[in-house]
Amino acid sequence: MRSPVVKSCCVLFLILFLSRHYSVSATKKILNPKKPCKRFILYYHDILFDGNDVANATSAATANATKLGNTDFGKLVVFDDPMTKDQHLLSHPVARAQGFYFYDMKTTYNAWFAYTLVFNSSDYKGTLNIMGADMMREKARDLSIVGGTGDFFMTRGIVTFQTDTQE
Amino acid sequence: MRSPVVKSCCVLFLILFLSRHYSVSATKKILNPKKPCKRFILYYHDILFDGNDVANATSAATANATKLGNTDFGKLVVFDDPMTKDQHLLSHPVARAQGFYFYDMKTTYNAWFAYTLVFNSSDYKGTLNIMGADMMREKARDLSIVGGTGDFFMTRGIVTFQTDTQE
Amino acid sequence: MRSPVVKSCCVLFLILFLSRHYSVSATKKILNPKKPCKRFILYYHDILFDGNDVANATSAATANATKLGNTDFGKLVVFDDPMTKDQHLLSHPVARAQGFYFYDMKTTYNAWFAYTLVFNSSDYKGTLNIMGADMMREKARDLSIVGGTGDFFMTRGIVTFQTDTQE
Repeated sequence: MRSPVVKSCCVLFLILFLSRHYSVSATKKILNPKKPCKRFILYYHDILFDGNDVANATSAATANATKLGNTDFGKLVVFDDPMTKDQHLLSHPVARAQGFYFYDMKTTYNAWFAYTLVFNSSDYKGTLNIMGADMMREKARDLSIVGGTGDFFMTRGIVTFQTDTQE
Repeated sequence: MRSPVVKSCCVLFLILFLSRHYSVSATKKILNPKKPCKRFILYYHDILFDGNDVANATSAATANATKLGNTDFGKLVVFDDPMTKDQHLLSHPVARAQGFYFYDMKTTYNAWFAYTLVFNSSDYKGTLNIMGADMMREKARDLSIVGGTGDFFMTRGIVTFQTDTQE
Repeated sequence: MRSPVVKSCCVLFLILFLSRHYSVSATKKILNPKKPCKRFILYYHDILFDGNDVANATSAATANATKLGNTDFGKLVVFDDPMTKDQHLLSHPVARAQGFYFYDMKTTYNAWFAYTLVFNSSDYKGTLNIMGADMMREKARDLSIVGGTGDFFMTRGIVTFQTDTQE
């Protein structure tokens, strides 16, 4: 019997304000969400392990759902997921998303994320640190980029999630 | 037999520096904690589920306390708590606080929080992301507002916790 | 039989940009990683509890490793660790590190941290909030300082980890 595996793919729209932008803003008078320093579009692939498919799984639940409702309230999942430039899981990953999420509503599926995008390629070396609520019932939802290192030194910004597919 | 339920209410004093303030500060020469862009006072209501009071509970422990001391070291609680403008639990919620906390001292009750304030009303739409230590033995303790989205785009600031009641 | 205890010591290099620096940067045109407002070097001591050494332990696993690989994927540890100015565990602690980490790779040891440095001495009172990936196979790895309170009001910056010893 094959273990149940949940595959999901999200599109992430990242808008970044690099640290040098803080000074530019001093003359421009405001950080304009429509004029970030840099934009990225990446695809996030999560393959939840719920049995023994160790080879393919990229995440696993380390704390189980509580008895509060039927929408996995309290279930905590740790992940190390590949990020690609297109929606194909098998494309060459340009970064990895390492962190955790848990479900936190008793009436619907709703999650909270904190994770790091780790870039280690010829294009970019460094990390972006992200946290926020993922209100899964909304079409698009925003999380905060709260810091960065390496090529993304002191970066801040916004990342927008959109669910692409779920199996 | 009724299950044990812990109800607690905290006052949150939020002081916010919106992103446009970064430029104002360029002429004012400094971000002044006494002159934020915006102030909020909100009440946070946490009703911890420890059995079967699903209807009223707003939080649940997803990992139990370890054997390190007697002050719940390691107990991890996920919550989706209403925030109101006054101390009455049944007042209309102006936001929800979604996130988690855990206890992290072996000699006294002391917690660490990370959560998102989700605003979805005619007044405000957007989120504030918050993290930090809650040194419960102090009268007032400060956490960081590390980012925001929507009406709170790129906001930073401080939130001060004060315990109001605990049953 | 004595319980297994893991002791590790890391050096933390903190570079801090205080909030007043945001205005200075307006004339300097850029936040320069080599010219922070302040530098700290601190040593972090973690003594993982895995049985009954309550007196000496400073951390404990609250969620166990999952079956995804053999490198503790999903193991979640809560800690309240002393920080000292030198590498001696018994030196007077200048701060405490309170937070959690978990392992998140199935092929090697790799961790993700979120924690608060709590300063409460005659030198400094306040907190620094930190999050990011700890790629343990790298010699030095950077995490983000995403906020601060008290003497570190609205601070941002970078903290660099280097493993000193592990027993």
